[in-house]
Amino acid sequence: MRPLWIKNAAQLVTVAGENGPRRKKEMSELGIIENGSMWIENGEIIAMGTTSELEASFGARAHEAEIVDATGRLVTPGLVDPHTHVAYGGSREREFEMRLEGSTYMEIMNAGGGIHATSRMTREATEDELVAQTTRRLDSFLQHGVTTVEGKSGYGLDLETELKQLRVMKRLNESHPIDLVPTFMGGHAVPVEYKGREEEYIDILVNEMLPRVAQEGLAVFNDVFCEVGVFTPEQSERILEAGKKLGLVPKIHADEIKSYGGAELAAKVGAISAEHLLKASDEGVRLMAEAGVIACLLPATALYLREEAAQGRAMIDAGVAVAISTDCNPGSSPTTSMPLVMNLACISMRLTPAEALVAATMNAACAIGMQGRVGSLEVGKQADLVMWNVSNYQELQYLFGVNHVGCVWKKGVQVVG
Amino acid sequence: MRPLWIKNAAQLVTVAGENGPRRKKEMSELGIIENGSMWIENGEIIAMGTTSELEASFGARAHEAEIVDATGRLVTPGLVDPHTHVAYGGSREREFEMRLEGSTYMEIMNAGGGIHATSRMTREATEDELVAQTTRRLDSFLQHGVTTVEGKSGYGLDLETELKQLRVMKRLNESHPIDLVPTFMGGHAVPVEYKGREEEYIDILVNEMLPRVAQEGLAVFNDVFCEVGVFTPEQSERILEAGKKLGLVPKIHADEIKSYGGAELAAKVGAISAEHLLKASDEGVRLMAEAGVIACLLPATALYLREEAAQGRAMIDAGVAVAISTDCNPGSSPTTSMPLVMNLACISMRLTPAEALVAATMNAACAIGMQGRVGSLEVGKQADLVMWNVSNYQELQYLFGVNHVGCVWKKGVQVVG
Ligand SMILES: [Zn+2]
Ligand SMILES: [Zn+2]
Repeated sequence: MRPLWIKNAAQLVTVAGENGPRRKKEMSELGIIENGSMWIENGEIIAMGTTSELEASFGARAHEAEIVDATGRLVTPGLVDPHTHVAYGGSREREFEMRLEGSTYMEIMNAGGGIHATSRMTREATEDELVAQTTRRLDSFLQHGVTTVEGKSGYGLDLETELKQLRVMKRLNESHPIDLVPTFMGGHAVPVEYKGREEEYIDILVNEMLPRVAQEGLAVFNDVFCEVGVFTPEQSERILEAGKKLGLVPKIHADEIKSYGGAELAAKVGAISAEHLLKASDEGVRLMAEAGVIACLLPATALYLREEAAQGRAMIDAGVAVAISTDCNPGSSPTTSMPLVMNLACISMRLTPAEALVAATMNAACAIGMQGRVGSLEVGKQADLVMWNVSNYQELQYLFGVNHVGCVWKKGVQVVG
Repeated sequence: MRPLWIKNAAQLVTVAGENGPRRKKEMSELGIIENGSMWIENGEIIAMGTTSELEASFGARAHEAEIVDATGRLVTPGLVDPHTHVAYGGSREREFEMRLEGSTYMEIMNAGGGIHATSRMTREATEDELVAQTTRRLDSFLQHGVTTVEGKSGYGLDLETELKQLRVMKRLNESHPIDLVPTFMGGHAVPVEYKGREEEYIDILVNEMLPRVAQEGLAVFNDVFCEVGVFTPEQSERILEAGKKLGLVPKIHADEIKSYGGAELAAKVGAISAEHLLKASDEGVRLMAEAGVIACLLPATALYLREEAAQGRAMIDAGVAVAISTDCNPGSSPTTSMPLVMNLACISMRLTPAEALVAATMNAACAIGMQGRVGSLEVGKQADLVMWNVSNYQELQYLFGVNHVGCVWKKGVQVVG
């Protein structure tokens, strides 16, 4: 592999600094190098600086390198999406239409819609079919500048299908350019066949599913949907503590629809991140800040569901490290556009353009434990980067609704553009 | 030019039918041909039907044609954007950031921001500079499947600059693939130098600007910003009636911020369309339906300004023909993404996927008098079309925030993909 030399970037946004969650003012520190340049070898960043600095140190080796002229362009770390349900079966566009044509929730359910439709289609799909469908979505993530993605199981809700979803992600992590970080989410819903016998399902989850997932090394995180009508805080705690004993780090879908103590529980169990948080209490946010739980906010989901977005601005001001994500899933956020999510973080949650970028890079990487390799541009880190068809980071958020990706490199290999 | 033969489209959405505004149930009629095919010569649609029908009639001429296999793809008319301020000078991304960093409106104004910043930058730009900047935006429109765009003057607010903006659009209509339909909008704001002397500015607009624009044939429409603190309904009526006498068809920015009688005025003066309408009264909507005024709704602007979107669903139910648009402008909607606008029409205004597509094609074409040439796929019409990387029109709206454009043809010439 020839070295890669990126030259003349109008703005090289490195987000360099400590490999840890950025809070408060740190969320505005982009480490910008004007007229920036990078030298990359074997998928790794070897040197960074101004173009004239790199010309001084690498000019003699110019003939060896593939040279990319980034004149007038913004270059950033590859984006990280820390919360998706990407490995699902089927598609539900007809349900979207039915709802807009006036069908009620019950009519859609009776027509076989809703989460149980995805569960059914995920159960019915073969592993190869799921790999094919998920590949298309990961390709779309790459097209949108996303080079690292977290993915959850949770549409199987039985041992076999949960393992299938996780194996699909394992295969894709190996075969697809994207780094795909797996989360077990048997606690996504109570399967229809256990309605009224929730505790029985939780017993199976805790005693059979979790140990098997841990034993096969198929997941890094263990996530649960703590919500009125799904799992109570007590049930969620049991699920998350059981995972912790097996080495699975807790995550929690918290306070999305009702204020339900999810943020508080995230702090209590030491979750790496809490998700959604549309209705998180002030006390819950304070506890998250204290415990160092990252808030993973999902403004595209709020838009799609016509909910008011989470209080991202207030959370940053309260000292919480904020990350953002697509929540890519077939029911409440069928999108792969992290650029739109950054735009919405500014428009709907009042993050500044700089904060939105840190939320989609370093803080997102921290939310899935990947900050040692990705999330910023530093010597020694993976050369995951995006060259954008805009000249500064403000334009990236201001010219909204447009995918400004020009080229994407994953581990130094050009995968888009 | 070789004939173009599109074959095997999963769905060929023609929107065929009467070349006029579609209302109520007509807004759901897409004229879908499954396994669709089109034969195009000299930029014009010669024949449409199923692939087997066209094989029967054109199979013998296959060797002459460039053949495009649209297997698994959706094909639609090129999108039409009926409301933009695309020919502006400068960029205001720093102002966007300042606002999110907590600057007040007055601080931004004092730092030289707001509409008067764009006015200043538009006045200072040479005609060639404006052509270059506008070209980049039109290229982005094409990338988003938009093949016809309306553009307004209104950042000059003096005779010379208004004429400059209109000449820029005239040049681009001739040189750029996009059909660009010009609107005079001297009534966009009262220029700072006429503060407190609004009537004097209106005198100049009516007595000098409008006659000159009409004489030079630089505009088809005459638009005014009827809003509290800008132009009153009485002033707006005077401006629009003066334009009518010169052959300029009225349009009106109505009831965006306050309910101010704008919808009612649109009906009274016989405007071809009324824009925004976030706060339109029920009576105003009723009068628009009666008078056949098209509602041009701008949900991306509402999103960007964090306003509740217009009542698109209710307007359709009330018998109004609804069109949708980006409102592309540097202050309240810096975007070129009609695909996102269609998504938002569904998500925020509760249009069905079919209605959103008609609102962005036939009804948008009608809002700018272009329905005879574009807005639907019909034998004899311009071959403006988009092949999308989805297989049906529902997916186009459901998989939101993503630009699904695969290829774009303008007058039968491939311009994207
Ligand atoms: Zn989720
Ligand atoms: Zn406007």
